[in-house]
Amino acid sequence: MVVKVYGPDYATTKRVIVCLIEKEVEFETVHVDGFKKEHKQPEYLKLQPFGLFPVVQDGDYTIYESRAILRYFSEKYKNQGTDLLGKTIEERGLVEQWLEVEGHNYNPPIYNLVVNIMVPALFGEPSDPKASEEDEEKLGKVLDIYEERLSKTKYLAGDFFSLADLSHLPFTYYLMNQMKKGYMVRQRKHVSAWWDDISNRPSWKKVLQLYKHPFESLD
Amino acid sequence: MVVKVYGPDYATTKRVIVCLIEKEVEFETVHVDGFKKEHKQPEYLKLQPFGLFPVVQDGDYTIYESRAILRYFSEKYKNQGTDLLGKTIEERGLVEQWLEVEGHNYNPPIYNLVVNIMVPALFGEPSDPKASEEDEEKLGKVLDIYEERLSKTKYLAGDFFSLADLSHLPFTYYLMNQMKKGYMVRQRKHVSAWWDDISNRPSWKKVLQLYKHPFESLD
Repeated sequence: MVVKVYGPDYATTKRVIVCLIEKEVEFETVHVDGFKKEHKQPEYLKLQPFGLFPVVQDGDYTIYESRAILRYFSEKYKNQGTDLLGKTIEERGLVEQWLEVEGHNYNPPIYNLVVNIMVPALFGEPSDPKASEEDEEKLGKVLDIYEERLSKTKYLAGDFFSLADLSHLPFTYYLMNQMKKGYMVRQRKHVSAWWDDISNRPSWKKVLQLYKHPFESLD
Repeated sequence: MVVKVYGPDYATTKRVIVCLIEKEVEFETVHVDGFKKEHKQPEYLKLQPFGLFPVVQDGDYTIYESRAILRYFSEKYKNQGTDLLGKTIEERGLVEQWLEVEGHNYNPPIYNLVVNIMVPALFGEPSDPKASEEDEEKLGKVLDIYEERLSKTKYLAGDFFSLADLSHLPFTYYLMNQMKKGYMVRQRKHVSAWWDDISNRPSWKKVLQLYKHPFESLD
């Protein structure tokens, strides 16, 4: 049975789709219109009680939370497609560490920037420059630590591409493109090289080609 | 070589210690005084560049981010102590899902309540009731979903205790005790039974007995 992915147009869902492509897992997508609040309707809430993207069905099995889905498919198809978990328990530990850093240190400020800059622009509303300033400062401090780390290893968890890197793709793409804040990456040499590397993977290019993002009208 | 755990008095570190006890892993603790900002000094930042608790050394191997450390030790000692990851890839997927829910849905409002209620009280300062109201409402909505889930399975990921439950211990303990908001748990029958079950595990009782929390003076 083919894997079903709900809400492919959203950033957190693209995190899952790029992983499925890397793992060579066949899937189909189910359109869920966030602007019409379809993800807050009873039918969707049966699958994802928090009313958030994404949710995936693998046959009878339902799983949500993007980073949990990444781990599930990377484990299930360990010997298929790109290895995204590292080869040893120690490598996997560092994949987990940097995936948690992405979720708890990197994502909160970049998500706030999306909410405060991209979303108002989409509705033709003014953004709050003060809020953005604070989040940009926070994100900059995280990127300084990335710069130091990436001066020692090619990818976050070591010299191998992993879930820890992959998980950064959708929101950093918004930062570089829709939000015109690419300088935050470009002014840091190692972060910049890392971004060029991971964003040029065929899997991510395919995601961008297949699924429009809700903010495309701003391009 | 014995595992070294830095900053045992803090909630996020206790999340790790209760796991080490469940997994029967020998460890020693290194005192780090957060009130003196020892976690922002160069020596600590070499181990944990974000200046956050906890960090653990397992011989030459250093790992941080509490939930990454939980996964690392649960994997490394898979066949020792309590199994905390589930027995199948599908069970592990649900452990991951609920561990992510704890990190991204449950922890933010409960953490804010700690910052807005417990911390000011410690310094004899007034708390912000408006901020607390919003966070209490958010936490209540999450607990409603837990109530529904726990009416079907004994623990969050299924009928087995796992990292997903364990990860809730330190901050929920503050909620029930130092913050006097136990009614949030007690007014939900299944959440209440779950809390009694997990908080009565010998591992958690041992943590409370061994490591004082910085807010103990408020008891």
